[in-house]
Amino acid sequence: MESKQFGVIGLGRFGSSVAKTLSELGYEVLAVDSSEERVEEIKDYVTHAVCADATDEHTLKAVGIRNCDEVVVAIGQEMQNSILITLMLKEMGIKKVWAKAQNDLHGKILSKVGADHVIYPEKEMGIKVANKMVANNILEFIELSEEYSILEISIPPRYLGKTIKEIDVRAKYGFTILAIKRGNQLLISPSSDEQFQTGDILVLIGRNENFKKLERDIGD
Amino acid sequence: MESKQFGVIGLGRFGSSVAKTLSELGYEVLAVDSSEERVEEIKDYVTHAVCADATDEHTLKAVGIRNCDEVVVAIGQEMQNSILITLMLKEMGIKKVWAKAQNDLHGKILSKVGADHVIYPEKEMGIKVANKMVANNILEFIELSEEYSILEISIPPRYLGKTIKEIDVRAKYGFTILAIKRGNQLLISPSSDEQFQTGDILVLIGRNENFKKLERDIGD
Ligand SMILES: Nc1ncnc2c1ncn2[C@@H]1O[C@H](COP(=O)(O)OP(=O)(O)OP(=O)(O)O)[C@@H](O)[C@H]1O
Ligand SMILES: Nc1ncnc2c1ncn2[C@@H]1O[C@H](COP(=O)(O)OP(=O)(O)OP(=O)(O)O)[C@@H](O)[C@H]1O
Ligand SMILES: [Ca+2]
Ligand SMILES: [Ca+2]
Ligand SMILES: [Ca+2]
Ligand SMILES: [Ca+2]
Repeated sequence: MESKQFGVIGLGRFGSSVAKTLSELGYEVLAVDSSEERVEEIKDYVTHAVCADATDEHTLKAVGIRNCDEVVVAIGQEMQNSILITLMLKEMGIKKVWAKAQNDLHGKILSKVGADHVIYPEKEMGIKVANKMVANNILEFIELSEEYSILEISIPPRYLGKTIKEIDVRAKYGFTILAIKRGNQLLISPSSDEQFQTGDILVLIGRNENFKKLERDIGD
Repeated sequence: MESKQFGVIGLGRFGSSVAKTLSELGYEVLAVDSSEERVEEIKDYVTHAVCADATDEHTLKAVGIRNCDEVVVAIGQEMQNSILITLMLKEMGIKKVWAKAQNDLHGKILSKVGADHVIYPEKEMGIKVANKMVANNILEFIELSEEYSILEISIPPRYLGKTIKEIDVRAKYGFTILAIKRGNQLLISPSSDEQFQTGDILVLIGRNENFKKLERDIGD
C-alpha cells in the first residue's frame, strides 16, 4: 500500500511540530523553509528538508511539492507569503492545503484563496487550556459537538470505595461512565457493581450543559 | 458558592484566547498587558483589564493579582519577563501558575522558578493537527494514555447499512464503539444490532498500537 506524502512549508514552532509528528507517525515529509537555520534544525527528523523561498513557483515545483498529497502552510507573521503560497499550491492541484492563520482576517483570506482547513494554533490551545483550568480534576476533554463532550477526570476522593450504581453520575449530572483507567488496565463499559479505587481515572460522556454542575461538584 | 478568580498576564493570541474563554465559562478574569492596544481589545470581554508592566511587583500587587487563585503567564517572546513574573507570582503565594513556553529551555526554566504547568501551544497544536491529518476520517482524538486513545470518525461508506455486530471493529481493530452521533442524537453504548446510517459519527476507544491499522483501512 502506498503511503501518503506530506509537505510542510514554514518551520516555526507549529510547522516543525507538525513535520516531526508526521515523520514519527511513519509518513514521508518534505519540509521547506527560507531560513537555513530552521532547515538545519529539522533535517534529521524528516525525509527531505529544503531551504527555499516558497513564494517562487519554479522553486516550489523543483523541490517536488507536487508529489505531496497534502501540504501545511505554517507561516504566521509573513501573512502575504502564506496567502500567496496557499493560492499557488491550490493552483498546482494539491488536494488538501492546511493553513495556519494569525488572526480572523488572515483566516478569511486563506479560505478565499482555497485553503481547505484553516488553523489558529494559539487561539485553539487557549480554549483548550481555559477549559482544563476551570476544573482541576478534568484531565482531558473533547467537545464532540455543541451539545456533547467526553471528559477524563481523576476519581473524586469521596467516590472511593463506592460502586458506579451508588454514585449514579447519570442521574445526578447526566453523564455516563464510558471507561475506567486503572493502572495499565482499561475497563470499558464497566459494570454498575464496579467499585472505585484510589488512582482511578474516569472517562465520561455527557451534555455540555451539565458540565459546569459536574465541575463545581468535583473541583477542589 | 464562591467562584474561582483567574488572572492572565500577556494578551497575545494565546493569552487573550484563555482570558476570553474563562470569561465565557462564567469566571472572573483579571487581564494584564503592558500594551494599551491589547488591553483595549480585551476590555469588553473580561471583568478587569489593566495596562501595567507586570515585572513591577508593586504594580502587580496594586492591580490585585493576589486575589487570583490561578494565573496564566502568556508571554512568549520576552522570555526574561515571563520568567521573572512567574517567580514573583509564586513568591506572592499564587496557588497555581500556568506559564507559556517558547521552547524547551524556556520551559525548563519556568518549571525551575515554580510554574505548576508549562504549556507549549504551538508544539501541542502541531501534534494534534498532524494526528488529524493522517486519517481524513478522524475528526477528533484524545490520547488517554501511552496505551489508549478515544477517536471520533465519520462512518466509512462501506459500513453504511451494516450493524455493529457485522463490522465487528473490536475483533478487527481492537476498538470499541462508545457512542454514535446521529444528527442531534447521541446513542451511548449502542446495541450490537444498531444499523449505521449516512452521516453517523462513531466515537471509538482502543489501543494506540491498533490505531494505524484502523487509519489505513478507513482513510481515503
Ligand atoms: N516565502 C517563504 N518561504 C519559505 N519559508 C518561509 C517563507 N516566509 C516565511 N517562511 C518561514 O516560515 C516560518 C514561520 O514564520 P513565523 O515565525 O512568522 O511563524 P510563526 O507563526 O511565528 O511560527 P510559530 O508561532 O509556530 O513559531 C519561518 O521559519 C520563516 O522562515
Ligand atoms: N512585563 C510585561 N507586563 C505585561 N505584559 C507584557 C510584559 N511583557 C510582555 N507583555 C505582553 O505579553 C504579550 C505576549 O507577548 P508575545 O507577543 O511575546 O507573545 P507570543 O507568545 O508571541 O503570543 P502569541 O503567540 O500567543 O500571540 C504582549 O501583548 C506583550 O505586550
Ligand atoms: Ca515564530
Ligand atoms: Ca506563533
Ligand atoms: Ca505564538
Ligand atoms: Ca504575539
